[in-house]
Amino acid sequence: MKGQRTIAEIREQPEVLARVLDAERRPVERLARHLRRRHPPAVILTARGSSDNAALYGHYLFETLLGVPAGLASPSVVTLYGAKPRVRGALVIGLSQSGRSPDIVEYVATARAAGAFTIAITNDGSSPLARAAHTTLLLHAGPERSVAATKTYTAQLALLSLLVGEIAGERRFVERHRSLPDLVETALNEESNVRKVAHRYQRMVRCIVTSRGYNFGTAREAALKLKETAYIAAEALSSADLLHGPIAVVERRFPVIVIAPPGRVRAHLSSVIRRLSSRGAEPIVVSPGRSALRVPDRIDERLTPHVYIVPLQLLAYHLALLRGFDPDRPRGLRKVTRVL
Amino acid sequence: MKGQRTIAEIREQPEVLARVLDAERRPVERLARHLRRRHPPAVILTARGSSDNAALYGHYLFETLLGVPAGLASPSVVTLYGAKPRVRGALVIGLSQSGRSPDIVEYVATARAAGAFTIAITNDGSSPLARAAHTTLLLHAGPERSVAATKTYTAQLALLSLLVGEIAGERRFVERHRSLPDLVETALNEESNVRKVAHRYQRMVRCIVTSRGYNFGTAREAALKLKETAYIAAEALSSADLLHGPIAVVERRFPVIVIAPPGRVRAHLSSVIRRLSSRGAEPIVVSPGRSALRVPDRIDERLTPHVYIVPLQLLAYHLALLRGFDPDRPRGLRKVTRVL
Repeated sequence: MKGQRTIAEIREQPEVLARVLDAERRPVERLARHLRRRHPPAVILTARGSSDNAALYGHYLFETLLGVPAGLASPSVVTLYGAKPRVRGALVIGLSQSGRSPDIVEYVATARAAGAFTIAITNDGSSPLARAAHTTLLLHAGPERSVAATKTYTAQLALLSLLVGEIAGERRFVERHRSLPDLVETALNEESNVRKVAHRYQRMVRCIVTSRGYNFGTAREAALKLKETAYIAAEALSSADLLHGPIAVVERRFPVIVIAPPGRVRAHLSSVIRRLSSRGAEPIVVSPGRSALRVPDRIDERLTPHVYIVPLQLLAYHLALLRGFDPDRPRGLRKVTRVL
Repeated sequence: MKGQRTIAEIREQPEVLARVLDAERRPVERLARHLRRRHPPAVILTARGSSDNAALYGHYLFETLLGVPAGLASPSVVTLYGAKPRVRGALVIGLSQSGRSPDIVEYVATARAAGAFTIAITNDGSSPLARAAHTTLLLHAGPERSVAATKTYTAQLALLSLLVGEIAGERRFVERHRSLPDLVETALNEESNVRKVAHRYQRMVRCIVTSRGYNFGTAREAALKLKETAYIAAEALSSADLLHGPIAVVERRFPVIVIAPPGRVRAHLSSVIRRLSSRGAEPIVVSPGRSALRVPDRIDERLTPHVYIVPLQLLAYHLALLRGFDPDRPRGLRKVTRVL
């Protein structure tokens, strides 16, 4: 049956989250104690694909909770241009489900040789990435059989937020991770509603996905899922950038998915939704309450990405099926992409 | 006449480049001496829209020529989430044509208060951004009357490459800037050829623009121009990321613009072009020689972005005209976007 593996892995997420949060709690606590002593002046995250979208979330979290400048590294600086990064004392985190993306492994190894403290976040503790880094946090997601990452993405988010929360000593934030499996389960229970939305948009060939702050990574991950499984030319844009030029492309009935959690970004995103509506566009809103893609209410804003991606994973999956594609086997893709 | 201002500003670029390189040579030399003494441990660039694409180029250049970790700041970390960035000693560069993007001004002011050394790169020396920063480099581009940035974008690239070249003490690289006005003029002389390419693709509703390394920013800037003036859903993707998932969206006759300069990324990009062709896609290649969008040969790879963007500016302009739009007045846009 088409998409069997993908949907099984989407539905496995509450279980994977419970497992990773339980199994890695102690290792994360130890690592956080170590990092509080080291006090790295900068954080560099490096990843590709879905892992890079998780890294983008990590970038926001390090900067907002810890104030430490956090950047996303372009591995090509090292792998193609041969630069020697001056990263002594910095924290470098490489994320890769398989642990086998050669450019990520090379970047982490180079950073380690240059004096950075390096962490691998991967599903495979014996992978080249795990061997290259000083220490490893494991995703405990079980084998990922579908090409499109789902359960490993949310497990990466959970490890990043747990780690940053522990370093910041934010006890309440750390405690709130316990509610994640149930929240994701509640989001999964909306599947029949998501399927209806997919029906309505099954002929869409292009769309924009937008948000800001913690959920900009969610927008990027949703756009990637829509591209790689449903073959829709979906582009993620920060809502601030969207207003800065690309909004010109939005004409009548242009579908724009807006990820709008309650919290700091809500007022801004509400004005974006109004502006899109006044142009005759079709905003498809992900938020609690009466929106098209409904998600549970009263989640710590910093944990909304772990939950808000779920209806978008389901949307990409159902759009793929309705359009006659097999989400388990996207055309032209391999599980591990080898670029240097 | 439609698009009059836009094409005038595109054609003004050789003159603007000659002017900015001449007028800012001494200020850049002084600033570079100062920065060599300060030896900042990290560089943070912050910008929106086209300026953010120039910032992305700056990020690569700082990392490859100087090895210093360089990141693009998300202003929302400060403006929405109220974080206090720990940036003491870092170099923070804010780029804005008008110098009036409130979130960029606020980020630079906050970074300065936190102990960073701050530079404004702007067209207006009395703008809020110029007042917020320790020092200012001016674009000398004259008033920019079209909404789509063109001459201010290439002037930003030129100031960034001149500054990094001076800090690195790379005399030959600095000298090579003198050839930029002529190289851009040569690229402009290809306009009738570019118009033919525009004719061929005038019905395109979506496309991908891809490159890697120094020209990833060029890809993003080209995609922005195609969106904001020709209303084409153009997405920029790093060619490494393209292979990692989004290539699934590329079907027969899907247009993919590939920016392929000679140099370190060429072998990789040639394999990307082959893979696209084998899927029946239509690669539209920007490179010297017999490609669809021809550019001058024998340019220092690090200066190719300043020249390679030119045929893409012309392409967006001619596509807009052919599709009946006015490139001078994109729908739904103001010149200064006010987001916080």
